[in-house]
Amino acid sequence: MRVLTGIQPSGDLHIGNYFGSIKQMVEAQKTSQTFAFIANYHAMTSGGKDLSKLTMQCATDFLALGIDPNKSVFWVQSDVKDVLELYWVLSSFTPMGLLERAHSYKDKTAKGIAANHSLFSYPVLMAADILLYGSEVVPVGKDQIQHVEIARDIATKFNNQYGDILVMPEFRVQEDVQTVPGIDGLKMSKSYGNVVNIFGEEKKQMKTIKKIVTENVAMEEPKEYANCNVYNMAKLFLEGDNLLALQERYKSGGEGHGHFKIYLGEVMWEYFREFRNKREYFQNNQDEVREILNLGANKAKEIAMPTIEKIRSVTGVRY
Amino acid sequence: MRVLTGIQPSGDLHIGNYFGSIKQMVEAQKTSQTFAFIANYHAMTSGGKDLSKLTMQCATDFLALGIDPNKSVFWVQSDVKDVLELYWVLSSFTPMGLLERAHSYKDKTAKGIAANHSLFSYPVLMAADILLYGSEVVPVGKDQIQHVEIARDIATKFNNQYGDILVMPEFRVQEDVQTVPGIDGLKMSKSYGNVVNIFGEEKKQMKTIKKIVTENVAMEEPKEYANCNVYNMAKLFLEGDNLLALQERYKSGGEGHGHFKIYLGEVMWEYFREFRNKREYFQNNQDEVREILNLGANKAKEIAMPTIEKIRSVTGVRY
Repeated sequence: MRVLTGIQPSGDLHIGNYFGSIKQMVEAQKTSQTFAFIANYHAMTSGGKDLSKLTMQCATDFLALGIDPNKSVFWVQSDVKDVLELYWVLSSFTPMGLLERAHSYKDKTAKGIAANHSLFSYPVLMAADILLYGSEVVPVGKDQIQHVEIARDIATKFNNQYGDILVMPEFRVQEDVQTVPGIDGLKMSKSYGNVVNIFGEEKKQMKTIKKIVTENVAMEEPKEYANCNVYNMAKLFLEGDNLLALQERYKSGGEGHGHFKIYLGEVMWEYFREFRNKREYFQNNQDEVREILNLGANKAKEIAMPTIEKIRSVTGVRY
Repeated sequence: MRVLTGIQPSGDLHIGNYFGSIKQMVEAQKTSQTFAFIANYHAMTSGGKDLSKLTMQCATDFLALGIDPNKSVFWVQSDVKDVLELYWVLSSFTPMGLLERAHSYKDKTAKGIAANHSLFSYPVLMAADILLYGSEVVPVGKDQIQHVEIARDIATKFNNQYGDILVMPEFRVQEDVQTVPGIDGLKMSKSYGNVVNIFGEEKKQMKTIKKIVTENVAMEEPKEYANCNVYNMAKLFLEGDNLLALQERYKSGGEGHGHFKIYLGEVMWEYFREFRNKREYFQNNQDEVREILNLGANKAKEIAMPTIEKIRSVTGVRY
């Protein structure tokens, strides 16, 4: 099964990104044909700054976190220009109403993001991303379901005219995603400013963890762990006996939340050690990262070729 | 001075096309750096059929009529994919309001053409066409002035953010274009069904010319030439003494409009003889046409390269 994921190169990754989607993506490599691209064209829709740097950082981070170029096709969107040609072709099969009804555009402009054409037409480019590679499954958050539906609508219109060329994609909502609380207890999200980064410096990370909001309970008292933000973050990293041991420490009293925070920091630091080492390696070998992306783009092009060639032929773009 | 013209591959050319724009374009090759591309991507916006065939026909016809690949850069739009990348980049510098105010989109949808995304975003692709090649002048009909203005607006926004990269284009309205009457006396236009094709069969052409609407005057009577549709068509092909001689024949009476029509047919047939021969040559050598277009695309790419490379660099698409 061919599964496609677009990755926004949006800067430092936090543990919400990791447990919310990256971990699943890495695991899916074992059972599915994973297609993962860094969506640098998409990043331009809201006036991306430092795009070049963010693209390399994103590639480096994802390779460190487990994207395996031997198992996945991993590339940068703009390295396969065919996607833009398909985007243009599909534009003639995209009724304006379809785009005008897109929630994401309405939400973003309502939030004050400039209503420009790339923001508006983003779902058509996303449809091209999905359809160019014959993606069968697109894992999405709930807010992205509509975009896959738009891709299906466009593909249906195209196939109605030219025959069964485009593969009809299905969306798959990540159901059992672990909810990751931010340091204030709300869902971890960059826009809430409540994140703990994966690849921070140790001291800085500890400083952030110390800001986690906790109840005010005297040191010697037993403490509730079930609703504690520290515990809920820690359980992402702990299993079995280790988790039970932490619960015991909460229940038995004699330690403050500060101790649990220190423990969380240590556990987290340990958890990401291997990733951090891989990241350091790739940071010191950016040419290798470029080479991986280059090979990935070549694979992606090869896979796209029969589809785009067929499309050039039936539409008459090839003369 | 770099002058850019986009040519719609829309089928058989008529003498209105020739005297209304092609002739000027051919003549401009003597004094300007002419860039002429067959706009096959644009042709898709209204559901182009037989696009491949029409593209080759268009290339063949324009080469026959005097586009000289040694003087002009002559290529097919879709052979330089960079234009689509610039199109995407510019989309982020295109406020939706700019497109919503475009007359052409409003007119076309009012006429019942499906309001699809490619029709709506057409001015952005046109801006990319213009700006990719650093066009200084774009000859347009009055209905296209707004599109050049849109290109200027987009270029200004882009340059404001990234510095003086895009050349600001000027439109030039063809002022002294000869008005070509159709066989009913209205402006010759395919949509009015009143055209005389340039490359018709001789018999068919004569048949069309015989349908030219004329006044009902007895054979022996003198006739008005100034408002006669036959005369007004004939004067496109005649100069000096030949034109005066025709006026004499009108004034002196003794001949009917049928005679003038036969004369018009002969003159026209003669006028386009050399073009017809060249066309036959290119029709029998379609590989040569392809080769010319291929060389043209390479030239166009070369000229586009510094601009698109600069754009990739400043926007961070290049990583």
